[in-house]
Amino acid sequence: MRRLRVGLAGLGRIGRIHAQNLARRCPSAELVAITDADAAAAARVGAELDVPVVPDLDALLSTVDAVVIATPTATHAALVAAAAAAGKAVFCEKPVSLERSATVDTLAAVEKAGVPFQVGFHRRFDPDWAAATARIRAGELGEVYLFRTSLRDMRSPDPSYLSSSGGFFLDVTIHDLDTARWMVGEIVEVSATGAALSDPRFAELGDIDTALVTLRFASGALGVIDNSRSAGYGYECSTEVVGSAATVRIENPPPRHYRWLTPGSDARGIPRDFQERYPDAYAAELEAFARSVLAGEPPLVGGADALAAYDLAVACDRSWRMGRSVRLAD
Amino acid sequence: MRRLRVGLAGLGRIGRIHAQNLARRCPSAELVAITDADAAAAARVGAELDVPVVPDLDALLSTVDAVVIATPTATHAALVAAAAAAGKAVFCEKPVSLERSATVDTLAAVEKAGVPFQVGFHRRFDPDWAAATARIRAGELGEVYLFRTSLRDMRSPDPSYLSSSGGFFLDVTIHDLDTARWMVGEIVEVSATGAALSDPRFAELGDIDTALVTLRFASGALGVIDNSRSAGYGYECSTEVVGSAATVRIENPPPRHYRWLTPGSDARGIPRDFQERYPDAYAAELEAFARSVLAGEPPLVGGADALAAYDLAVACDRSWRMGRSVRLAD
Amino acid sequence: MRRLRVGLAGLGRIGRIHAQNLARRCPSAELVAITDADAAAAARVGAELDVPVVPDLDALLSTVDAVVIATPTATHAALVAAAAAAGKAVFCEKPVSLERSATVDTLAAVEKAGVPFQVGFHRRFDPDWAAATARIRAGELGEVYLFRTSLRDMRSPDPSYLSSSGGFFLDVTIHDLDTARWMVGEIVEVSATGAALSDPRFAELGDIDTALVTLRFASGALGVIDNSRSAGYGYECSTEVVGSAATVRIENPPPRHYRWLTPGSDARGIPRDFQERYPDAYAAELEAFARSVLAGEPPLVGGADALAAYDLAVACDRSWRMGRSVRLAD
Amino acid sequence: MRRLRVGLAGLGRIGRIHAQNLARRCPSAELVAITDADAAAAARVGAELDVPVVPDLDALLSTVDAVVIATPTATHAALVAAAAAAGKAVFCEKPVSLERSATVDTLAAVEKAGVPFQVGFHRRFDPDWAAATARIRAGELGEVYLFRTSLRDMRSPDPSYLSSSGGFFLDVTIHDLDTARWMVGEIVEVSATGAALSDPRFAELGDIDTALVTLRFASGALGVIDNSRSAGYGYECSTEVVGSAATVRIENPPPRHYRWLTPGSDARGIPRDFQERYPDAYAAELEAFARSVLAGEPPLVGGADALAAYDLAVACDRSWRMGRSVRLAD
Repeated sequence: MRRLRVGLAGLGRIGRIHAQNLARRCPSAELVAITDADAAAAARVGAELDVPVVPDLDALLSTVDAVVIATPTATHAALVAAAAAAGKAVFCEKPVSLERSATVDTLAAVEKAGVPFQVGFHRRFDPDWAAATARIRAGELGEVYLFRTSLRDMRSPDPSYLSSSGGFFLDVTIHDLDTARWMVGEIVEVSATGAALSDPRFAELGDIDTALVTLRFASGALGVIDNSRSAGYGYECSTEVVGSAATVRIENPPPRHYRWLTPGSDARGIPRDFQERYPDAYAAELEAFARSVLAGEPPLVGGADALAAYDLAVACDRSWRMGRSVRLAD
Repeated sequence: MRRLRVGLAGLGRIGRIHAQNLARRCPSAELVAITDADAAAAARVGAELDVPVVPDLDALLSTVDAVVIATPTATHAALVAAAAAAGKAVFCEKPVSLERSATVDTLAAVEKAGVPFQVGFHRRFDPDWAAATARIRAGELGEVYLFRTSLRDMRSPDPSYLSSSGGFFLDVTIHDLDTARWMVGEIVEVSATGAALSDPRFAELGDIDTALVTLRFASGALGVIDNSRSAGYGYECSTEVVGSAATVRIENPPPRHYRWLTPGSDARGIPRDFQERYPDAYAAELEAFARSVLAGEPPLVGGADALAAYDLAVACDRSWRMGRSVRLAD
Repeated sequence: MRRLRVGLAGLGRIGRIHAQNLARRCPSAELVAITDADAAAAARVGAELDVPVVPDLDALLSTVDAVVIATPTATHAALVAAAAAAGKAVFCEKPVSLERSATVDTLAAVEKAGVPFQVGFHRRFDPDWAAATARIRAGELGEVYLFRTSLRDMRSPDPSYLSSSGGFFLDVTIHDLDTARWMVGEIVEVSATGAALSDPRFAELGDIDTALVTLRFASGALGVIDNSRSAGYGYECSTEVVGSAATVRIENPPPRHYRWLTPGSDARGIPRDFQERYPDAYAAELEAFARSVLAGEPPLVGGADALAAYDLAVACDRSWRMGRSVRLAD
Repeated sequence: MRRLRVGLAGLGRIGRIHAQNLARRCPSAELVAITDADAAAAARVGAELDVPVVPDLDALLSTVDAVVIATPTATHAALVAAAAAAGKAVFCEKPVSLERSATVDTLAAVEKAGVPFQVGFHRRFDPDWAAATARIRAGELGEVYLFRTSLRDMRSPDPSYLSSSGGFFLDVTIHDLDTARWMVGEIVEVSATGAALSDPRFAELGDIDTALVTLRFASGALGVIDNSRSAGYGYECSTEVVGSAATVRIENPPPRHYRWLTPGSDARGIPRDFQERYPDAYAAELEAFARSVLAGEPPLVGGADALAAYDLAVACDRSWRMGRSVRLAD
């Protein structure tokens, strides 16, 4: 069985998840090198996974067929462009950039180089979401009337830590915007409301920790997204799509499938973060990336999807700031 | 709308439930008199419900069309016989008697008098159980393979208090034995195991607090009952019937239909006793009794059912004591 | 036990539900007379429930302590005013009127007469909602961050039939607006989106069948309501309130508590309409009305609540028509 | 990272599952060779997984550190003995043999050789079961009162095909007997009932397709197992353990975590076989085997467990045939 030779740049939280999945759970990929600006951290991961560490992206590019970019957002555009120029297939965490022009230029460079490109919208590859969406696309739901989704973190990071996140909508809501497009189709109008409720520092920084976004799809269907940085009880990622023939509810399953009964209480667990919620999706997105590259087929979620979700997130931000709905440019 | 004039004898826990239901929740019944050996208790209930109190059964019989007997078990047989002799319709809590001969004689007296008789197997009238059983009887389950039921109390009464209960199987299991007959059909063999686990006094009294009973139905199907006096987490009454075409699971619903989420825990409530579990069944059994009497139709669960469940409970007791299965007499 | 002598005007669908509950399930009320413009219909209900039929409101008022008004909306204001002038306690279905001035005038007449007044927001009396809300009000949820509710009908009535409903927001959303106020507090801003998706006649009539409303509460919390006239799968009424200390989810329980398993499918039922969803709430609101009148205490949901929900529904309608958020007047 | 060099013998259904897991999902193992009596089947699997095929066990043993034996039951004992004699760590599917003497002799040979030995009770390694059992063992359940478990297949294989299975209890119930011992402790008495309900050929072959087994644990706790070869609705593997401080229910989760709502029905999927029910347990048991061998620690479930479960299954068979309970020899 041929395996795609992959190099990984960036070993922060999501980077380490990718490293472990590439090393252990992606039969179509072989993790052949890793790199990180923090050499000691790279050495630790390399030793743990028995993978060579290289000093920088150039060294990485010289030895691989494909790169996975999980570095800080500010570096994405340059690394993607360099990898594309070197003719490598590219998997890049979202967003490509916080700037639209940089995003457009980077995706143009990818297209010009003719290399495969996938963006890190992992939910598309989760088995539950993929199965439900396949049924929607097969028409089993009939005409879609209403889309509703929740994405909530249990606890916020320190607000100051979020200064380089691009803001709430580009950091959090973007995942739901991609999911909405994927499951129901193009979005023509958004209207966003936000509030800073859990910590006064959000307001001081001009940021929010809770948001509601209503959507109007090109089909006429309506949608609503609710997001929170501090839901308190746990991590939540669940969706409902109401159609004329059926309705589907993708659940937020407990991390372990048992119930624990004590006097008067029948309780299940709740996932505490995206790792507990998505034990398989992160491995599945990289395995799918490797398979599509090996097969010479375009990745399932590429540059156009990255740009569309970016534009929607920016439109949400504008809607929130202006206090009115925003139509997407045609 | 004509209403059945009902008198109630016995105002212990279940008697007070019956009093409230007859006074407030049974449109086909009118509670016209109550009596209890404890005159003060009777006066309190009478005042609360605005119902006349009478000194004894004779006074009760002189003013009603039907009696509901909720006195201590030892008095059931005599009261049923007296009411039947007076030509009154009779509803009697289970069991009719702890003695088989007294049970048989009492039921014979009822039959001779030609009065309607219903025994207090409330589960048959609970809307959930009734709906599920109707579907089984309509053949929607196909051929029944397996019956499984749990009846568990949250906490045991003091073991010494149970001395007049007739023992675990006549006190607790009898309800499940009736349910099994009702849902699946006649039982030809039982095998019972028991243990005293929650309190050493059960063993000292030669009693048990936990039991397993396996059943063989005349149809060939198998069944199993588990019972406990101290399940700890709450009251449980739930059943599963596995059939060739479908399987039904009657749930133990929470007392209130909401979930309460706290960090890492998604919890529903659990009923704490039979009142919380069966908010409607006790009213429904009395309403059904009144309706059948008014309509001149036989009650849905009568003397033959009371005797059959008694015999099965006694067979369980024998099986447990002898350590082997017991076949029911033909 | 003293009972409130109640008369009922209006025997349409909800009126017949009220009649049955008053006759059979409200121990603190006595249904002493009914009336309806359709004399034959009134005669049928009267015979079924053994309740006297009177020809009109005047006859009704002459014999009762309190009236329940369930006539067509256009008649509410006049009937409420007449009953108040006669010194009777009044329970009136929502809305009091489709016109604000008539609503205000009617409530002023009630206040002037000094009679108790309750409006038909039944959800406040449902045991599940009441229990959950009591816990929120007791502070168990901490600070509320997010309110989310769904109210959906299974199938729409014929669009033309809705011409006198006052529009989607006054007919449907008003219940959720009252619930939001009750559970979380005053609402200062609404933003509504709507669409006509299930039937082209909604659009032809300038109406909608699907709506999303986002709310901003005085506390700063956010809220979202989704409503549909044709969810297809069933009737839905469920709510989630996310707080800093806990989150509560009020479920849409199945009409019967069993699951039915067939090859590959584990299914529960779904209520088909508000009667299946709320077996107890309609009786409970009338029992609570009777009790509060008898006790001389103000009803739990009165004129100010009716007007506040009316104003919010009208604000939703304006928001939808203008395509922007609407702040409530101070 | 060091990996255990593993060879696999037997490429039937469970063998192919093991092959895929060893090749792709066990980071501590490396699948270096496979063999099967059907050379063409072995060639197909070898090509698919890019693993060398060898002609027989001898060839396998010459190149590996450990073997996984998934051949037909009749061959287990000899292969285990040969592997042990060659000094290889051994993982063997259950049962070691249908004969007690062969089982004992084989396990003695393993012990004499001093090689690690693990038997294929996969449930012990499933994340849900392992987590729940860890909490029981930590004492969080208090004293155990009752153990209840269901293991049911959706559809039976052809009865004739089961002739070499060793009978129902050795083929099916043995898994639950191991689970009971693992979760609650040693079993001192069993009582089994059985029936042939789904297909007359079971009775003709002197076999059964449905069984109930009650257990008495050394601790005094009671247990019950229900098993079926043709539950119809799906594959079921779920357990409840009732304790004095808490009760745990290990669920039978749906294969995909979404609900599908159609008019009046809210449905989740049901697993159809053990592969759908246990997506992780089979990989986890081999990964644990590899890790324990590499670490020089004894496997978590070894020869003594295999023999204990065998003896219990045989006792169930005797109990069923004799119609009475059977005490386990001390």
